[in-house]
Order: sequence, then structure tokens, then C-alpha cells
Amino acid sequence: MDNTHSFHIEDLGKPKFKSPLQLSTVRGDNIFNFVSESDKLVFDISLDQYNKCLSDGEEPQCLEKAGPRQNIFFDPKEATAAIVTCGGLCPGINNVIRGVVMGLHYFYGIKRIIGIPYGYEGLNPEIGHGFVELTPDKVKDIHQFGGTFLGSSRGGQDVGVMVDTLEANGVNMLFAIGGDGTLKGVNAIGEEIEKRGAKISVVGIPKTIDNDIDLIDESFGFETAFDVASPIIRDAHNEAAGAYNGISIVKLMGRDSGFIAASAALAMPVVNFVLIPEMDFQLEGELGFLGVLQKRLKRKKHAVIVVAEGAGQQLFQGQERIKDASGNIKHADIGLFLKEKIGSYFKDANIPVTIKYIDPSYIVRSAPANSRDSVYCSRLAYHAVHGAMAGKTKFVACKVNNKFVYIPISEVTKKRKKINLESEFWFSVLQSTGQPFLLK
Amino acid sequence: MDNTHSFHIEDLGKPKFKSPLQLSTVRGDNIFNFVSESDKLVFDISLDQYNKCLSDGEEPQCLEKAGPRQNIFFDPKEATAAIVTCGGLCPGINNVIRGVVMGLHYFYGIKRIIGIPYGYEGLNPEIGHGFVELTPDKVKDIHQFGGTFLGSSRGGQDVGVMVDTLEANGVNMLFAIGGDGTLKGVNAIGEEIEKRGAKISVVGIPKTIDNDIDLIDESFGFETAFDVASPIIRDAHNEAAGAYNGISIVKLMGRDSGFIAASAALAMPVVNFVLIPEMDFQLEGELGFLGVLQKRLKRKKHAVIVVAEGAGQQLFQGQERIKDASGNIKHADIGLFLKEKIGSYFKDANIPVTIKYIDPSYIVRSAPANSRDSVYCSRLAYHAVHGAMAGKTKFVACKVNNKFVYIPISEVTKKRKKINLESEFWFSVLQSTGQPFLLK
Amino acid sequence: MDNTHSFHIEDLGKPKFKSPLQLSTVRGDNIFNFVSESDKLVFDISLDQYNKCLSDGEEPQCLEKAGPRQNIFFDPKEATAAIVTCGGLCPGINNVIRGVVMGLHYFYGIKRIIGIPYGYEGLNPEIGHGFVELTPDKVKDIHQFGGTFLGSSRGGQDVGVMVDTLEANGVNMLFAIGGDGTLKGVNAIGEEIEKRGAKISVVGIPKTIDNDIDLIDESFGFETAFDVASPIIRDAHNEAAGAYNGISIVKLMGRDSGFIAASAALAMPVVNFVLIPEMDFQLEGELGFLGVLQKRLKRKKHAVIVVAEGAGQQLFQGQERIKDASGNIKHADIGLFLKEKIGSYFKDANIPVTIKYIDPSYIVRSAPANSRDSVYCSRLAYHAVHGAMAGKTKFVACKVNNKFVYIPISEVTKKRKKINLESEFWFSVLQSTGQPFLLK
Amino acid sequence: MDNTHSFHIEDLGKPKFKSPLQLSTVRGDNIFNFVSESDKLVFDISLDQYNKCLSDGEEPQCLEKAGPRQNIFFDPKEATAAIVTCGGLCPGINNVIRGVVMGLHYFYGIKRIIGIPYGYEGLNPEIGHGFVELTPDKVKDIHQFGGTFLGSSRGGQDVGVMVDTLEANGVNMLFAIGGDGTLKGVNAIGEEIEKRGAKISVVGIPKTIDNDIDLIDESFGFETAFDVASPIIRDAHNEAAGAYNGISIVKLMGRDSGFIAASAALAMPVVNFVLIPEMDFQLEGELGFLGVLQKRLKRKKHAVIVVAEGAGQQLFQGQERIKDASGNIKHADIGLFLKEKIGSYFKDANIPVTIKYIDPSYIVRSAPANSRDSVYCSRLAYHAVHGAMAGKTKFVACKVNNKFVYIPISEVTKKRKKINLESEFWFSVLQSTGQPFLLK
Repeated sequence: MDNTHSFHIEDLGKPKFKSPLQLSTVRGDNIFNFVSESDKLVFDISLDQYNKCLSDGEEPQCLEKAGPRQNIFFDPKEATAAIVTCGGLCPGINNVIRGVVMGLHYFYGIKRIIGIPYGYEGLNPEIGHGFVELTPDKVKDIHQFGGTFLGSSRGGQDVGVMVDTLEANGVNMLFAIGGDGTLKGVNAIGEEIEKRGAKISVVGIPKTIDNDIDLIDESFGFETAFDVASPIIRDAHNEAAGAYNGISIVKLMGRDSGFIAASAALAMPVVNFVLIPEMDFQLEGELGFLGVLQKRLKRKKHAVIVVAEGAGQQLFQGQERIKDASGNIKHADIGLFLKEKIGSYFKDANIPVTIKYIDPSYIVRSAPANSRDSVYCSRLAYHAVHGAMAGKTKFVACKVNNKFVYIPISEVTKKRKKINLESEFWFSVLQSTGQPFLLK
Repeated sequence: MDNTHSFHIEDLGKPKFKSPLQLSTVRGDNIFNFVSESDKLVFDISLDQYNKCLSDGEEPQCLEKAGPRQNIFFDPKEATAAIVTCGGLCPGINNVIRGVVMGLHYFYGIKRIIGIPYGYEGLNPEIGHGFVELTPDKVKDIHQFGGTFLGSSRGGQDVGVMVDTLEANGVNMLFAIGGDGTLKGVNAIGEEIEKRGAKISVVGIPKTIDNDIDLIDESFGFETAFDVASPIIRDAHNEAAGAYNGISIVKLMGRDSGFIAASAALAMPVVNFVLIPEMDFQLEGELGFLGVLQKRLKRKKHAVIVVAEGAGQQLFQGQERIKDASGNIKHADIGLFLKEKIGSYFKDANIPVTIKYIDPSYIVRSAPANSRDSVYCSRLAYHAVHGAMAGKTKFVACKVNNKFVYIPISEVTKKRKKINLESEFWFSVLQSTGQPFLLK
Repeated sequence: MDNTHSFHIEDLGKPKFKSPLQLSTVRGDNIFNFVSESDKLVFDISLDQYNKCLSDGEEPQCLEKAGPRQNIFFDPKEATAAIVTCGGLCPGINNVIRGVVMGLHYFYGIKRIIGIPYGYEGLNPEIGHGFVELTPDKVKDIHQFGGTFLGSSRGGQDVGVMVDTLEANGVNMLFAIGGDGTLKGVNAIGEEIEKRGAKISVVGIPKTIDNDIDLIDESFGFETAFDVASPIIRDAHNEAAGAYNGISIVKLMGRDSGFIAASAALAMPVVNFVLIPEMDFQLEGELGFLGVLQKRLKRKKHAVIVVAEGAGQQLFQGQERIKDASGNIKHADIGLFLKEKIGSYFKDANIPVTIKYIDPSYIVRSAPANSRDSVYCSRLAYHAVHGAMAGKTKFVACKVNNKFVYIPISEVTKKRKKINLESEFWFSVLQSTGQPFLLK
Repeated sequence: MDNTHSFHIEDLGKPKFKSPLQLSTVRGDNIFNFVSESDKLVFDISLDQYNKCLSDGEEPQCLEKAGPRQNIFFDPKEATAAIVTCGGLCPGINNVIRGVVMGLHYFYGIKRIIGIPYGYEGLNPEIGHGFVELTPDKVKDIHQFGGTFLGSSRGGQDVGVMVDTLEANGVNMLFAIGGDGTLKGVNAIGEEIEKRGAKISVVGIPKTIDNDIDLIDESFGFETAFDVASPIIRDAHNEAAGAYNGISIVKLMGRDSGFIAASAALAMPVVNFVLIPEMDFQLEGELGFLGVLQKRLKRKKHAVIVVAEGAGQQLFQGQERIKDASGNIKHADIGLFLKEKIGSYFKDANIPVTIKYIDPSYIVRSAPANSRDSVYCSRLAYHAVHGAMAGKTKFVACKVNNKFVYIPISEVTKKRKKINLESEFWFSVLQSTGQPFLLK
């Protein structure tokens, strides 16, 4: 992130309509105030950074506050919105869909909201999925269900074709709910729109169960993910403790980042080892994972291991890799690999062990949002609506330092967020598990 | 089952002590009556069977009513009890342990209760697991946890060694919580005891997550199993419906019997196919599974399949089989097999599908008991205690026709219970899924 | 119950259409057989009763087996069905509605299914609630929600008016889901129909959260009720144990029967006292409740009390009573009464106590059905549909001795089911709580 | 809060021991760094505040970063710690107890940890509750239970007596888990200790289910509270929708602040009205609550109202008030009051309504912590331990702007936190419910 300039959110032009929201512009009347473009929040809140700016005579890196603007770009009486959900399932997608529909309908009186079925495929008329009309009545109960009401798919479609579809159907605002690839895709759509001189706002709502979108506090559904994973770890502990030298291995999501594994392990403090993609670790050697595991077993007669799916890829050097439909390199299966390695290690050492392997994957992905995520999804959706109606484009609605802000899509897709191994968060995981800082 | 004679429960000898329970022997005083040996219940309750007995002039097949006897065999002041849990985890084991301890302690004042750790291994002193003293205070909260407080193991130990251990430790009653193999094991222990002329009561409490113990209504933990599996099926449905031609496959427990798969599918009526070990089915052919699945996808664009782990073994003809530690033949993995076959079938047919495979196994096994199972476990445990104190031996405490009874272990281990494909139960599953009676 | 004759289910006339169900009439083909009128099940399964019948030369009391008949009364192409839900909420109502709609539509091809809104009020055109058309698509997800999709109301309407409405709308089958009053109401509707010579089948599906419908094993939703109540009792225990001399009082449903209170207490074995309507108990005196409670507190420093709402009415002698909309006498509030009495008793005794009062009522009533109840509701609904299509009338579909049967409505409404204080069930509750048989 | 100076945490003296934690002091070695006293975080992160400081030439208000210090005050080999839990139950107390014990034992090797039973009462030897020795083995499973392992009480004890007890038992660190009153109490203890020149660190861990501790992001247990309340609101909706003109009123905790009511309503977006203590509202008048409710019923036939227990106290003018054991003025019961007023209003208007009143109180208070709160509690506990070992005193460990910090107790007890009616948070609630900004 460039520390010297604040992020700039692009917009489609000067807002020309008065917001239909009956808000205030003064403090003290117990009525929420419209947010102005000058409402900004500091990104790096350490005193060091503050002093650095001070001595450099520069304004700190700032974020644009999210919320309803007094003047809006689209005419509520005529505007059409579209919603698309892409990529793998994640708790809360339906809550976001519901929130966007409710916000557009009730706050701004938008009459026509189009649901795009099955991800970006739905914007390619050749595939022929058609559209779904979205109304408050259709979406009012969907927050109680996991999954996505609209269906999803992985991978992209031709950008030109997708923009053709949006234009042909008179869409003014496109809300895309998805992860890194989806956000890059909707940004590309936004750029193509700009090139054509069209006036369509494109908004990203970051969705990644791995919580690996950069800059933002946390992505929706992530908390539910470790909330659902946590009792499964308790189960794994029951299995491990139920056998002499019982070992349970729980594989959790986390392609490049171990947030779910780490958070779930913290939430159910019966875990003895957390292995994440950010860590480099070895199996062999006295300080390697297997030796440390053996010492644990000797003391306690059971062990619980939580491993993120992307952990330990350094152990698969030289193996060929394949890509999935979204273009991500498929990881070798560290869970089954560990199960085998642990099994043969203890067999060689003539120590009887019982290993249970648990891979809850879809059980986590397709759960309904828990309460915090429900709150978060509604608010995210409302902010996405307010930003789009104001004519902003190519931005994500998100939360940073516990406040709702808008950030350009291009900023959050520069790299994936990872766990900092020197952070207080990872240290708290190690304090909870008692595992050493390094396993090599 | 021999229809002409009632089951006979063996006992260790004439009960010689007065029960410390303050119960009644008359009706109408609002105090429970001691159960007498003549309290019996008819096993087959169809009118046809009744009429058959009538015309044959024979008493119907009867079961012995469970409950406290007025005279007991063991002296509460001196008796020692032991509890062992064997085989795979199942919800409710801890509730049964707790119930047995509470019953022995509070109803009869038994002072010494030994917990045998890690299954039958714990009765082999050479392995050296030691014992655990069990008291009300130690077990009072364990019903809130899944797993087994005592630990478990698979497979048996030398019967002579185990009886030596029981005798050496002055054990008068052994409560064995386990499945088919465990029950056969404890019966063999009972026979060895008899051979030695010892006076140790052995009691089986049938535990099988598959619900495949013969004659009895249902085994404890089974209901919790499908209660836990049911929302996972809802998740599977979310995954299936979230993709165009989405197919979810959920593999559930059921080595030889499809009770969990069938019940879970009934409980969450979004399932389109249930495949169980009792069914013979083909994949190919117009009426085979794959063809019928294709028709379903064409109509509805998604499908949910629940498959019991022991289903479709006829499809693996000619493959070599291996055995597990309990001596059961290991099944070929029908879940992954189906996933592959479905994938290649639709690939050949040039129909895009998305397949999600879910194998919750340990998540189901290690859950805490739900409320009904908790009730059931406490009552089972109490009845096991009453039977043992009365000096009965080589029996299981169980429920038949909704009543608690005692049955000789040898009767319930003759064969495994299976779903009758012509029963109302299986028909209700087919009514719920809409799948054809035959898939071939 | 008259022991000398089997129950007789009335029917509208001779079935004249062939069932569209592709079932079998022979054993051994793995296809379910049509149920015949001669398939019967013995009601009282004790050997004593059996021998009594034998010596009297009489057939035992029998019940008619539920299930699809080979010949049906209504022409599936023309028949119209209606569903109504009455009285208070109970888990599983939506599952039953769903099951009836699915059964009528998919098994028999019924085209028109009318939802009657807000209970019997919906059959009174003057109130003007209108009708709801029910289709598989409308009801497919409702089983995941508690409450009733159709709305409900208490109390009855003029029978003539309701039959007028049914006739005017060409209804051939009326499914009424409700408790004692509702069942009596639908029976009266059936009698009025008969009087008019009309051919409308009326079917009751017993719904009572109190589980107090006579003769039947258990009513749907009851198990969910104590499944939901059980963790609330755990909470109550946390509250009690969290304070010195902490006392928690949980009031649960049970106007005239203590089934929920007793079952929930068994399910969460931290309860020290269960007070139910079937018990006569005193507060004062050495063996009265307060004295026994004091002894408990002295030993353990906390206590958990579960009280059914209808318990202890003998303590309110001489107070005036009022009736609710369903015509039931309103009970005095035993929960608050106990709270006051306990408070003043210990205040007088100068013993500091902390009392927490918990009344979960609607939280229990409006929960979605758990897995067992879901299974039960679907099967009940299917059997109700099969019976109605066969032209049977004025019957309930229910389960007795673990088998689905049809019983005349008039038989199950003769009296309310109560807990037998001398039964094994109540004894198991006392074994779990440790409370004395008598509290006076 | 004084904006010109950073908060100053007092300490007992110069740390003289080397921390036994094997941490780092340099970046880049993948090992967590000791936190130094100069690590600070800006409190107000708005750009406006930043610019104000800049133009005033002042450092912004800062908070001290929590975490382990390189040098510690107490000798781990000799130090004794004590833990006390006070006030009403709140999810997560046991997690905090567990975290403090684990942290003291495993991080610093503290041998003696005393559990003070039943709140401050436990520090008064005259009451005679004794102590509980706390070890990792005793607390390892308690996080799975709600309530408090140590017991609690309301109100305070003589400060001198409590300090006598601490001194007499050689306590070096006192961890007090409690709300506003408890924190003030432990601060007073800290002042008395200082007066005596003793060296005992006193640490507060803010516990308030109402989330009304000032300055901090959120108190532990609060999220679980609305997570537990949220499905109860869904139940309330089922009840409301299940009756014609059904109205459900759910009363939730919130003496002076409506955070739980507002958050639960946002989490389960079926709520139509949220009434909180921060709002002034009227019942009568066209824009009063009852009139607006009537309009809602006319349109939708049902309504769900969530009311915080402290809401609407302005409606009880002139009534006498009493105080509870903690010295708080007892609120008049707004829930029952609303129920009556709504009932009589619609009765007068001759509009039939059905009102259901739900007061889940203890069900919420005594739930076990959900996953996020579990994570939060462990980390809070660890930070409390690190601060105490460093010799800091009279501080709370807490989270501000999503970062763990230490704040002087005196700063967070100056006033209670309330919902700002002009905040984005409250606006999001109004957006979700659709209720007007003002109800008068």
C-alpha cells in the first residue's frame, strides 16, 4: 500500500439526484447524518506511523467512509440493479443478497433487480441460464439458509460479452459477491464499461472463506467458518482421547492463509498443533513435527492436529501441479499426506497409534451465517447499495479498523492477506496450543 | 428366533439379599413395584402371530421385563463393579457410563466401581493401562461430552486373561458397552466364568452406531447419529443447488445396514437417492442408477445422494478384501467409487456437472447424545444395573416394542439386523426421495 | 378402552378406484405390499393380557395397520384436499403440512390442495381470511422452519358453517392438525358431513406439545420439545451452581400431564426435583417439598427444579379460575407461586438463597422439528394421506407400540393421557433426580 | 476522555526479573517480539481528529499496547495469583478463568493459583466460603460450559477486609472478572493496596453482557449473547406469523444500553421494532409507537418487537424505584408494561390481536461462549496475565479499534457506553427494521 496518498474511489460522474433517504446533516437531532466525501479514516493507527507522518509533514494514508450520500447518481425511479455470486460457497452469501435487495427496494425504491444465476456464466447468454427477478418477498427468508440462492460457478467469462449483457438489459449497477478472482473480474468489467463510456457502477463484496482478501479486517462468513469448525475440533479431540495414543487430524480450508485453522484452534483450545501455509516446517529431525508429536504423545497419550489445506506445500517439491476451474494451482493433499507420514513414522518406531482423519470442507462452506456474520452481511450490503447509488464504481464495501469503508478493488487484489508469524494473533495461537515457534 | 419358547436369562444363583430400594409390591400406592420374573412381554405383536399361537395352543414368544427385583444376588456392601467400553465411538457412551455409576452408587450403595481403560485391552495387565476409579463426582458432567471417558479399542483379548483380571480384582459385575464383537466377547467371558464356577455377572449394553443389533428396537446413539447427519445433508443440498447440475454425495455409516442413511434422508427430505447395503443395484442400463440420476438432473438441475458405506459392494466383485482390527472385512469405498463413476459417466455424456463429496464419519460418531438418546441411555444403564444386581448374567439390557427388556446376549448376536426392503420403513424412505423401488 | 372389541374405523363407502401406487401384493419381490384391512396389531402386549384373552376365548384388542390400500375411494384426477392447523404451536407442524402436500401430489396426483389459514377461523367465510393454494414448490422448504405455514387460531367455529365451506369449495378430504379440541371439532365436522350424506373424509393428525393424547405412543413435536428444553435446564443448572444456595426453577409446558418436564429432566440429569400435575404434593411439613429442598441445599449448595405448568393446582384451592380461548381452565401460575414460596420460606429460615426463574414456553413451542420428529411427521403425513384416499374418515393417523395405525378419533379423545406414577418411566425420573416418591 | 494526554497505566515498581518466555526482540525471525512500553495505538482514528492534533501540535490520545514484556515484576517461582468472578452470568467467564490459569501455569510457571468462590464474598473470611486451588487439569474442560466455575455474587465487601485476605494469603496478583461495579471495587482494592505500600497487582477483565463498558470495542460474551438471542427472535417471528395479527414481544438484557437488543435484531432481520434505553419514545399520538404498530399490522398482519429491559423508563415517571444487591436501580418491567398497553390499545380499537411475550434472560446469560468469544476470552486472559506479571496494576485488559490494549480501570468506569442514536450502527438497525427514527 502506498503510504503517502489516500485511496481514490472512482465514480461515474457528478451525483445529480437528491437521495430519497430522510437523513440529517446536523449533529444532535438523533438522526443519522449523510456521509460526506471528506469523512475519512486513518489506516495505520500505530503511534509510530502517526509520528512518521507528522515528521514528514504528510497526511496519513486514509480510507473513505462508507455510507449514504446526500446526492446520488442514479434516478431511483429508473435504475436497474443486478447481483451475481461467484466461486465456492461461504456462509452469509444469502444474507448479502437479501441485504442488497432490501436496501435497493426499501431505501431507494429501485423497482427492477436482476439475479444473475450461476456466477459469471449467467452473464453469458450463450450458456442460457436466463435471469431471476429478485423481490423482497422472494428473498425475505433466504438468510436462514446456507449456500447461494442464485447459484454460483467458478472461473470467468469473456468481459466484452458480459458487458454486452449488462448493457442489453439496461443494468445500472452490478453487485458481484466473490473472492479474489471475482473481484478482479468485476474490476475488468468496470474498466470495459469505462472504455465504452457507459455509466454502470460495479461493486465488489469480498467473499472468501479463507479470509485472505488484503487490507480488510475480515471477510464475511469467515467467523461462521471457524464457528462451525470449532465443535468439529471438539469431536476430533473426543476421537483422539478415546483411543490409546489417539491422533486426530482435522483439515480445514486455507489455500494460502491459515486464518480458519488458527482461529478454530484458538476457539476450541484442545488443539496441540496448528500447521498453516505461512509456516515453513519439517517433518523429520529432532525439532521437526514428527519428533515433537512423539514427545506430546508420550506425555499425554493423545494429540489433535489442525492443518490448513495449503500448509506444508514445501514438502511436495518436485511434484507436478494441476489447476482448478478458477485457475488456482491445486494443492497436494497435506491432510492425507500427514496421515500417511505419521502412520509410517510411528509404525517404524513400533509405537501403536490410532489416527482419525477429518475433512469437514463443505460442512463448513455451506453453513448458514452465524449472528455476527448476519449483522455484518446486512451492513455490508447496505453500504454497497449506498456506494453504488452514489455512482461510485470499481470499489469494495468492507470493514477496516472496525469501521465500514470503501476501497478501490484494485487495492485489495494486489496480494493475498496472510497471517504474520510475528503477530500477536499467531502468538496467541501458539500460546493456546503450546507448540514451538518453529518446527524444524 | 425360536418362536415356540421364550428367552431364558441365565442367573448366577438364588438372590439372597433384600434390595435396598424402597419400592412397593402393590398397585395403587403411587410407588413403583418391584418387577417379578413372571412379568413378560409378547415379542411379535401382529394379530396373525397371535392367532397362530392360539391355533397351535402355544404361548407366544416372550421377553423378560427389565427392572429392579425385590431380592438381589450381590451384597451391596461388598460388591465391586467394572465398566468397559469397546469399539468405535457412538453418541451416548458417556451417558451410559454415568448412568451405571450413578445407579450402582445411589440405588444400591456400591462403593467400588472400576473403569477399565481402552476397551478389552484394559483387562490385559500386560498392556499396562491400569484402572480408573469411578465415582459420581468424576462422572457427573461427562454426559455433556461425546466420546468415551474410559477410552476404547477395537478387537479382543485372551478370554482367560480377562477373567483372571476380573477375579484378581474382585469384580462381581462387568458392564460391557459395545457392538456385536464386544457382546460376543463378553458372552465368552461369561462362559469362562461359568466354567470356573465363579460368580461374576456379565452384562452387555448394545452399542452400534449402525443400529444393526438384532431383535432390539434401536441401539442408543443411533438417533443422535442421524440427528447430526441430517443438517449435513441440508448442507449437501445447499452445495448441490448452488451449482448448475450440482451433485452432492454424502457417505454415512452403515457397514451392513442402511439405517443411518435411510433415517437421515427421511429426516432431511431433500434427498433424491438413498443407496444402502440391503439393496442390490446397478449403475448401468436404462433403469440403472446413472440413467435415473441423469433424468433427475435434466428435470431439476441438481441431486443429493446419500450412500451407506457398505452399499454397492456387489459392484466390487473380484477385488481383494482386507480386514480391520475388529476382524470385519473392510469395505471398498463406495463413496469415492460413485464419485468417479458419476464423473466419468457425465463426462462421456458431455453434460457438465459439479460433484461434491462429503464424508462426515467421525463428526457423527463423536457427537454428544441428543435428548432422546440421553433419556434412553440413563434408563438402559439403570436397567443394566438392576439386572446385574439381581444376579442375571450374559444378558443385554435393551428395548423391544418400546419396553425395556432383558435378552440373552446369544440371541441378539445370531445375526445382524437389516432394513427389510418390503417394510413400511423403507417404503417411507422411497416415498420421501421419489426414487424407484429397484435401480436395475 | 373396551378390551373385547377391536376399534372400527368408519369409511365413506366402498373404494372404487385402483391406487396409482405401483406396489406389490406378494412377499419376496423387494417391493412394499399394499396394506389390507385384515392387517391388525395387538394393543396390549403384556403376557398377562394375552393369557386373559386366551382363557376368555376372545380376540385381543386390535388396531388397524396404517398404509396404502390397493383400492381407493377418491378419483385422484378430481379430488380436492384441504389442510388446517389449529391451537398452539408445536414443532413439526410444517413437516406434516409438507408431507401431506407431497403425498397427495406425488403419490396420488392430487391437483388441488387448499390451505385453510388461521385454524378453524379459515373455514368461516365471514372472518374473511381466504384460502392459500398449496403446491410442492410452496412447501418444499417449510420443514426447516418452526411455527405453522398456514397460521393457527384457538377455539372452534360453527360446525354447519364449516361444512358449508367444505362443500362449497368441493373439498373431498380435510386434514386437521391439532390437539384434543381440534380433534373433537373435526370429528363433529365428520358427523355433520355424515348427516348430510356428503362424502368428505376427515382426518385428524394429533398435535399436542404436552403429549397428552390418549392411547398413542407419542405425539409429534413432543420429542423436539424436550430436546429444546434440555439445554435450557443445563443453563438453569449453570445459574444455580453459579450462586451460593442458588435455586433455579424452570417452568415447562404440561397442562394436565408432566411428560415434557419429566422427559427433559431425564435428558439433562442435573435436575433435583420434577413437579408434575399427576403428583399430589405439599409444600410444608417435614416431608413436604420445602423441607426436602432445604436438605438438598444444605448438602449441595444449589438445586434445580423443573415444574410442569399444571403441577400443584391443589395448592390453589378456593381461588377463582378463568378459561382461555380454547375453553381450557387457565392454571394458576405455579412457577411464580413456587418462586415466592421458596423465597419466603428461606427468608424466614434466615438462609440466603438466590432464585432464578426461567419460563421458556414459546422458545420450545416454535422450534423446528428435530430429526426424529421430522421422520415421524413425514411418515404420519403419508399415512394420513393413504387413509384419506382409501375413504376412511373420522380417524387419526398415529403410532402405537412403535407401529403406524389408524384409530377412530372418538377413541383418543375420551380422556387425556397422563404419567402413571407407578410406571417404569416415572420411576426412571425419580432414579435420575433422587427425589422421594412422595413429597408429603 | 481527556484528549490531550495518553492514558497512564500505573505499575508496582521496576520489573526486575527476566521473562521466561522465549520471545524475540527483532523483526524477521518469525518469532513474536516482546512488547515495549513505547508501543502505542491512536484512540480516535478519524482524519479530523488527526488534523486537529496536527494543528494543535499535540500527540493524539494513545493507548498502551497489551502483551508480554521482556522484564517482569514478579518472580515466577514464588508468585501467587487469585481469580474472582462477580456479578451476573455472562458467556465466556469460564474461558477467561481457563485462559488465566493456563497462561499463569504454562507461560510463567506460576505454581499457586487460588480460585475465590462466590465473588467478593469469597474474600471475606467471615462468610466462610474457603478457596479452590486451580490447576490446568481442573479447568481444562470448563470452557465448554456456561456459567462460572467459581460461583459469583452481587455487591461488594469491605475493601480493608478483602485486602487483608489477599495479604494474609500471599496473593501477588488479583484477576477480577466483572462489570462496572466489580471494576470499581477492584480499583478500590488497588488503591488500598497502594496505601498500604503492598505489591499486589490488581487486574480487571471487563464482563458485562450489556456491552456497556466505556471506551472498549466490545466486552466478551456480548457476541454470544446476541447469537443466542437471535434464534429466539426467529421463534418469536414464528409465533407472531402463526396467528392473525400476531404480535411477539421479546425482552432482552440492556439496563442502560440497547446493544444486545439492537444487535440481535440486526442478526435476525425479521424484527419490526427495536426499543432501547437510549431512545425517548411515546406510546400515544399518531407518530407514537402504538399508532405506528397499528399501521404495520394493517399491512402485514404480524409484528415482532424487541425491547431492551431498560427501555422506556420515561414512561414510568413518578413510580417508586428499588435497588438490587449491586446497588443498581431496578427498572420497571417494560416488557410486561408494553404487553398490557398494546393489549388494551387494540382492545379499545376493536382489533383482535394475539400477543406473545418472551423473556429469555437466563437462557442468554448462562450459554457457553461461541467461537469468536472463545477466541476473544483466551486472548484477553493471556494479556491480563502478561500485564499482571509485568507489575502493572489497576488496569483492564481489553480491545480497542480491534487491538488489545491496557487502559486504567478508572478511565473505563467514568461512564457507561451507550448506543449513539446518530451512529452508523443504530442507522443500520433502523434500515433493517424499517422503523422511523423517532417514535413520537
